[in-house]
Amino acid sequence: MIRQNIKVAVDAVVFGYKDKSLNVLLIKRDIEPFKDSWALPGGLVLENESLEEAVMRELKEETNVTADYLEQLYSFGAVKRDPRNRVISITYFALVKPEHHKIKADTDANDVAWFPIQELPELAFDHHMILEQAKKRLKNKLTYEPIGFDLLDDKFLFSDLEKLYMTILEKEIDRRNFRKKILSFDILEELDEKVSEGRGRPANLFQFNKKQYFKHQKEGFIFDIK
Amino acid sequence: MIRQNIKVAVDAVVFGYKDKSLNVLLIKRDIEPFKDSWALPGGLVLENESLEEAVMRELKEETNVTADYLEQLYSFGAVKRDPRNRVISITYFALVKPEHHKIKADTDANDVAWFPIQELPELAFDHHMILEQAKKRLKNKLTYEPIGFDLLDDKFLFSDLEKLYMTILEKEIDRRNFRKKILSFDILEELDEKVSEGRGRPANLFQFNKKQYFKHQKEGFIFDIK
Repeated sequence: MIRQNIKVAVDAVVFGYKDKSLNVLLIKRDIEPFKDSWALPGGLVLENESLEEAVMRELKEETNVTADYLEQLYSFGAVKRDPRNRVISITYFALVKPEHHKIKADTDANDVAWFPIQELPELAFDHHMILEQAKKRLKNKLTYEPIGFDLLDDKFLFSDLEKLYMTILEKEIDRRNFRKKILSFDILEELDEKVSEGRGRPANLFQFNKKQYFKHQKEGFIFDIK
Repeated sequence: MIRQNIKVAVDAVVFGYKDKSLNVLLIKRDIEPFKDSWALPGGLVLENESLEEAVMRELKEETNVTADYLEQLYSFGAVKRDPRNRVISITYFALVKPEHHKIKADTDANDVAWFPIQELPELAFDHHMILEQAKKRLKNKLTYEPIGFDLLDDKFLFSDLEKLYMTILEKEIDRRNFRKKILSFDILEELDEKVSEGRGRPANLFQFNKKQYFKHQKEGFIFDIK
């Protein structure tokens, strides 16, 4: 085989819904290059682990988070994307419920935090490109399968689901159409419990109908709200 | 940086529409392992080329084909997927018009051929998994953007487009609904030229309206024919 000095890394874009907004999990790098810059959690793949094992391990080591949902996103391989050797990053897209995880920085990270996607710091390497790709994936997913189960609390207000969709779609949506469309998929169950939202009257909590949700996640549906 | 002995390769799944069916371009390996097995064209990435440059180069070297359309598919990194060293393959999905390319095997390939996807030989490594992933991508693409421009002849019969969709969807479709739906996107232009199809009466040729086609390819649409 030809000589080839290319390293293989994995990086994760971890989304969570927190404080009524879509957040992304970032670490502050404790090592050069880009020491003290915010970056996506990740690192080099060990020789005896799969790519998924590598990304789960790095995520756990650097942030203490275990992803509820994980899928491969895209591989970034521009020749000069790392100022050291050539490093190809195989990136992953993860969803978690922030309130289920106590974040804690360790190993190559000296800090870890959730950032609302509208208030992101400057990122190390080409990580802003990776994040853009992940946002695009999230947006696409939402048109052909349900989303929210791995992001929202187990019980949530309808307005949370609405807000999540609007954040991902990056636009206002017609609330009446949205409600009608989402309810037509039978993925939601309205509960008897009510909670007060701001100054409005108490609103019912919802939960996902897991069976229907996973059926649609597997088989897909078309959600073409404008 | 940690010691890591992992090689990075690229492989391409090249689809083309030929002899009224969807075909895949395969090479016969001239080197071990899997010498004389059919496989996807591909090979190791050189240190100073991007991933896209690597896959274009390998494709050209081994098959003499230049892809009309290319996008990244998925990265395969199981620890034992290559019996030699660990090799991670970053795979690509390509579309070509077979009649525009004179295929010719060279370098690591001692033969090259188009295979109808219903009549595939056994493939080297995990290449059958890569091909499955590519078929899935093709199927998904077709629900949210037009398909065919990079696969069909410049002028084609409506029945070719129909056949292409049925092959990709792996099912029969209602021809009347299909025609109505496809025409509603304004991506097709019916020409005055007629050709004879088998024993039937002469049928009109079609071509894509490039402007509309690329507009929809960029912005997407929802094609949810059952």
